[in-house]
Amino acid sequence: MGRRSDRRKVLRLRGDAATARPDTLAVEEPLEIRVDGTAVAVTMRTPGDDVELAAGFLVSEGVVGAADDVVAIRFCDDGRPDPTHNVLDVTLAPHVAVPDFARSFYTSSSCGVCGKDSLDAVRTTARWSVADDAVRVPATLLAALPDRLRDAQAVFERTGGLHAAGLFTAAGEVLCVREDVGRHNAVDKVVGWALAEGRLPLAGTLLQVSGRTSFELVQKAWMAGVPVLSAVSAPSTLAVDLAEEAGMTLAGFVRDGGMNVYAGAHRVAVAAPAAG
Amino acid sequence: MGRRSDRRKVLRLRGDAATARPDTLAVEEPLEIRVDGTAVAVTMRTPGDDVELAAGFLVSEGVVGAADDVVAIRFCDDGRPDPTHNVLDVTLAPHVAVPDFARSFYTSSSCGVCGKDSLDAVRTTARWSVADDAVRVPATLLAALPDRLRDAQAVFERTGGLHAAGLFTAAGEVLCVREDVGRHNAVDKVVGWALAEGRLPLAGTLLQVSGRTSFELVQKAWMAGVPVLSAVSAPSTLAVDLAEEAGMTLAGFVRDGGMNVYAGAHRVAVAAPAAG
Repeated sequence: MGRRSDRRKVLRLRGDAATARPDTLAVEEPLEIRVDGTAVAVTMRTPGDDVELAAGFLVSEGVVGAADDVVAIRFCDDGRPDPTHNVLDVTLAPHVAVPDFARSFYTSSSCGVCGKDSLDAVRTTARWSVADDAVRVPATLLAALPDRLRDAQAVFERTGGLHAAGLFTAAGEVLCVREDVGRHNAVDKVVGWALAEGRLPLAGTLLQVSGRTSFELVQKAWMAGVPVLSAVSAPSTLAVDLAEEAGMTLAGFVRDGGMNVYAGAHRVAVAAPAAG
Repeated sequence: MGRRSDRRKVLRLRGDAATARPDTLAVEEPLEIRVDGTAVAVTMRTPGDDVELAAGFLVSEGVVGAADDVVAIRFCDDGRPDPTHNVLDVTLAPHVAVPDFARSFYTSSSCGVCGKDSLDAVRTTARWSVADDAVRVPATLLAALPDRLRDAQAVFERTGGLHAAGLFTAAGEVLCVREDVGRHNAVDKVVGWALAEGRLPLAGTLLQVSGRTSFELVQKAWMAGVPVLSAVSAPSTLAVDLAEEAGMTLAGFVRDGGMNVYAGAHRVAVAAPAAG
């Protein structure tokens, strides 16, 4: 665990009783990601799996798609005696085109910042289609994923403060679980793991996340080629619209044995197949 | 409500029963904020109170601190027949220095991206001290804020997908409640409301948020001069450290009549004062 959780003094109030004691909290620290020497992002994250986080971030941004797109990801210590391990230097392979991150974020040509245009932007950069992914998953298996994800979470139990993303096979076997104060970071860590393992695109897999699903999460899943995204809580309208556009299966409110399927319901088998 | 929630088709699965029906979801759309013609941020938000969101964002960024720092905030329609209302043009008063947003975000001089340096950066830009704020609040009142916030939430009940931020007086009276798919946006909307109302700094107030508290939320509260920040769920280590640094009161796990006070416990009165 190391730096993922830490203790702080807390005054615990219950009724008229006040007790001072240490409490274990999820660590949050900034991580600066540099690409070929230029800082491209600062994300507030829980330390741990930082190299995967940086790699997954670059997959989500459409910069890399295979392990050999990345030459090296190393912590920068600037020669300090006490390096913070909060800056990562990414060296890309010569064949990878480095986008102008600042321009892509800060420039827009018109007032056309609407859902439709955003979808177009993502569709342009997505490397893989998930629409034709033939994976099918029983509803009962999807319903079991939140518990399996929770069981695999190491830090949450102690802090109550960490989101998680878990990648599963279509048979429900855990491939990778990552935690972070930010749900998007947890997903990037999983995707970065998949990149390093040579598993992209993540065809035939299920991605289970804690909490809600936003446009950003569906986009990250799409960029990694995940055909089925499942969440414990509600999706936003744009998450549903993007999943529909991508041909991705999106489930929400996966809890208490039930769920809502907002897109790609054809992949979810409701009743068990009759015995042969 | 208008565009804050919308319906999508959903397949509802409970056991072996599958029913198709419409479901109400929280709307998520991008909002581009332009300052004097330059795009400075795109945030994924729930439409509504967008002008407040833009104003609050600029308070959080340390750009403005009073209503007369802003000349106008208007939707840009680019002459389209169907403007998206997803771009806001902010015109600042001549006396306001416009920071280089891209530089401030993308440049760092060394590997010193650590908690300490981040705190320094915030302390430099904070306009107001909250450390000397003399407000005191009974624990019983703090404990009641989550219910009051929930009662004031209009959209959550239907969608289950919206975060909320509520500003209260020290007596527990609601001043302003705003909702958004993003917790940080909900806080910015409240702060933007306060700016327009001429209420900054928000001395003597309590800010209650749904969910967790991160570094970013404490920073926003500090930039607005809020002395007491209270959340339903866990804070991160850096949230606690920044609150401590600011002299802000930070409560977490405010639920079921109890709470944990992570910083500034001197402002929380445990037992009711004896009758005179």
